[in-house]
Amino acid sequence: MKDKTLLLEESIVKLADGKKYASLRDLLTTLNPADMAEAFSGLSDQTLPLVFRLLPKELAAETFVEMEPEQQATLIRGFSDSELKAVVEELYVDDAVDLVEEMPANVVYRILAQADPQTRSSINEILQYPEDSAGSVMTTELVELRGTMTAAQAIAHIRAVGLDKETINTCYITDEGHKLLGVVSIRTLILADEGALCRDLMNANVVSVTTQEDQEAVAQMFSKYNFYALPVVDGDGRLVGIVTVDDAMDILEAETTEDMEKMAAISPSDRPYLTTSALAIWRHRIPWLLLLMVSATFTGLVITKFEDALAMCTVLMAYIPMLMDTGGNAGSQSSVTVIRGLSLGEIRFRDLLRVMGKELTVSLLCGLTLAVCNFAKLMLFDRVSLAVALVVCVTLLLTVVASKLVGSALPMLAKRVGFDPAVMASPLITTVVDVLSLLIYFQAATMILGL
Amino acid sequence: MKDKTLLLEESIVKLADGKKYASLRDLLTTLNPADMAEAFSGLSDQTLPLVFRLLPKELAAETFVEMEPEQQATLIRGFSDSELKAVVEELYVDDAVDLVEEMPANVVYRILAQADPQTRSSINEILQYPEDSAGSVMTTELVELRGTMTAAQAIAHIRAVGLDKETINTCYITDEGHKLLGVVSIRTLILADEGALCRDLMNANVVSVTTQEDQEAVAQMFSKYNFYALPVVDGDGRLVGIVTVDDAMDILEAETTEDMEKMAAISPSDRPYLTTSALAIWRHRIPWLLLLMVSATFTGLVITKFEDALAMCTVLMAYIPMLMDTGGNAGSQSSVTVIRGLSLGEIRFRDLLRVMGKELTVSLLCGLTLAVCNFAKLMLFDRVSLAVALVVCVTLLLTVVASKLVGSALPMLAKRVGFDPAVMASPLITTVVDVLSLLIYFQAATMILGL
Repeated sequence: MKDKTLLLEESIVKLADGKKYASLRDLLTTLNPADMAEAFSGLSDQTLPLVFRLLPKELAAETFVEMEPEQQATLIRGFSDSELKAVVEELYVDDAVDLVEEMPANVVYRILAQADPQTRSSINEILQYPEDSAGSVMTTELVELRGTMTAAQAIAHIRAVGLDKETINTCYITDEGHKLLGVVSIRTLILADEGALCRDLMNANVVSVTTQEDQEAVAQMFSKYNFYALPVVDGDGRLVGIVTVDDAMDILEAETTEDMEKMAAISPSDRPYLTTSALAIWRHRIPWLLLLMVSATFTGLVITKFEDALAMCTVLMAYIPMLMDTGGNAGSQSSVTVIRGLSLGEIRFRDLLRVMGKELTVSLLCGLTLAVCNFAKLMLFDRVSLAVALVVCVTLLLTVVASKLVGSALPMLAKRVGFDPAVMASPLITTVVDVLSLLIYFQAATMILGL
Repeated sequence: MKDKTLLLEESIVKLADGKKYASLRDLLTTLNPADMAEAFSGLSDQTLPLVFRLLPKELAAETFVEMEPEQQATLIRGFSDSELKAVVEELYVDDAVDLVEEMPANVVYRILAQADPQTRSSINEILQYPEDSAGSVMTTELVELRGTMTAAQAIAHIRAVGLDKETINTCYITDEGHKLLGVVSIRTLILADEGALCRDLMNANVVSVTTQEDQEAVAQMFSKYNFYALPVVDGDGRLVGIVTVDDAMDILEAETTEDMEKMAAISPSDRPYLTTSALAIWRHRIPWLLLLMVSATFTGLVITKFEDALAMCTVLMAYIPMLMDTGGNAGSQSSVTVIRGLSLGEIRFRDLLRVMGKELTVSLLCGLTLAVCNFAKLMLFDRVSLAVALVVCVTLLLTVVASKLVGSALPMLAKRVGFDPAVMASPLITTVVDVLSLLIYFQAATMILGL
């Protein structure tokens, strides 16, 4: 895949440099907007506007939406007012809102000045919803029908108004006050008798969300219910917009990235890695590294407390990293499983005891397997004394059990009290498990070796 | 959300126990199939078939698809042949294939016996494609049009055949040999002049995949191109099926879970956690724990080698966990960022040097911040000697730099040679980083303290 895009990029540059504009235009019209935007990403700030101007109007707008904010800004700076107007007019309202949110203030001013008054008021309305809410990601371009329309009238209505709408696959039945009554798919309208009334064809069990709903919850409803679009209503049940499945996929992707970042102790950012400055990346990573460094101090304190015992039996030192690492790995296996289960809705707080019971069984199985293997290795290869082998293996078993219980319980408790379970993942659990494993180790050493 | 489902489950059980079947049926018909399946998940094996039989035929099939395999098997065992036939007839072919793949052999036999011959042959055809290929997730129910049809003829054709098709939102133009020529959306057909020819309306820049394509690549095309459906062609370019966006979302969700599992050192499984046995969970977790335990032995060897030095300067021991943990955290920040970037296509192998350069800068910034903070803490609170503080802080800086370089390079190199980058994440990198940080630590101690 990547080599194809690279080749394409080179061909575009060569044709542009050779001023073969007619051929270049023919080449470009064979491309999909997403592929084109990818191929454009390597073009220089000089070549890009030149190539972009060759595109037919609609394709230009579709490609523009797919481009990175930096390139969009470059293009807009070079646009005349009428060129900008042509692009803005072709944008769907939700794409225009994304653009306005990404651009610097002076560019935003120009965009809003070129939008027609109705689009401008829609953009402003959507901008007022809280970040990451359903209202902020919806589009206001939808097909609204009345229950008293026949299927034939509905289709005629769609033919008259559909051109500007982001989707006509699902249409919405409302009353005079725009209260949402039901949904009907274009499929149902087409397959129905021409005289059938929309109110008889519609599905009145309509699932909708309010403008304030969190975007992640909205996106997850798409994967649960297999929707193509989801209606958004205001506090009075009036239809104000729709969220479409392509936006839901983008939201899910972004939220997954955010979860993974939190699990790896990174403060989430919504910018692509390669275009983020090193300083910005540092800002997202350093707070967690500092916090975890400070908390690792407790582990150091435990070691300091048992320094004398360790000095008396130095062989114990060699197994500290293995015990800490195995505990950390066992704990993060459990925490990641539980965090993902929580975020997919497969695990709920009421399952806490069931999860803990299962983790107890699994951890005993894992702990015993590891302890037995390790015992054999300690006696046969390391040739330590039986007492030392016992200390290490008992610690290993107890550490794995403790790690898995902590690893599964912490995310569930965090979610219960309203924290994000993802930040309870590996790094934080590793620190807890480190202290636990050392305390168990030295306790076992004291009891078995009598240190 | 969860409490509502729980309440619903209780209401269903109470109505069923009180034999209030008419009211129960009315309640059920107000529900969405996905919600109903969720509410059913708590019903006993006795209550479930009783409640399920109350559902109207189409709703019954849609709910059946959303249920867990265990419950599907329970229902099928209790079905008469005609009941089973009614459900199977309502299923889309891809859902029927999923069912056949999940059920035990004797149940599969009954399902295939009740399917009509055409469905049976479609199921068998799809079952022959490799697991996780586009062929194995596609449906064969699609709308095929000819280029010579007018928009009005096309719509009439859809009205005649559309009822059984999973989606009519996108239709496919083929020649007599079923070779795919283009796509046309129902939107275009409806908005077009009635006399316009399909071949003039269609988009001939059609993106398609072959039956052998990996399902993850297919799903990612949906989020890149914002498709509702993607045509699947055989080796000769003949249209054999489509993948729909709802299946693409399910695939992305499953693949993301798999990535997270691999990053947490778990062999992926595609069953929900709560219904997986402890033994199966153990099987998915123990190989990695064993492997990582063995590799942690190297860390132990490094410590053993420097045992005498450590015994001479026991204060150094206290900082080992902090150094190892910080290195591990710094490394997994980089590896998770790079792994996610690779899987979203934001980072490619050709960016290796750019990524390494950026990580070098970020790691110097992070390492310096951590070293300075730690130096202050060591001198002010721990009151160690200047030399010891220097050893710890130099190690910290170098460890963070090494960890971030290793953490970012390993996944990219792994992908280059055809390994899954996700398994290069935290646990494996932690082990590498542990050894590195100890080697740096003891080297620094030898040089600065002269041990």
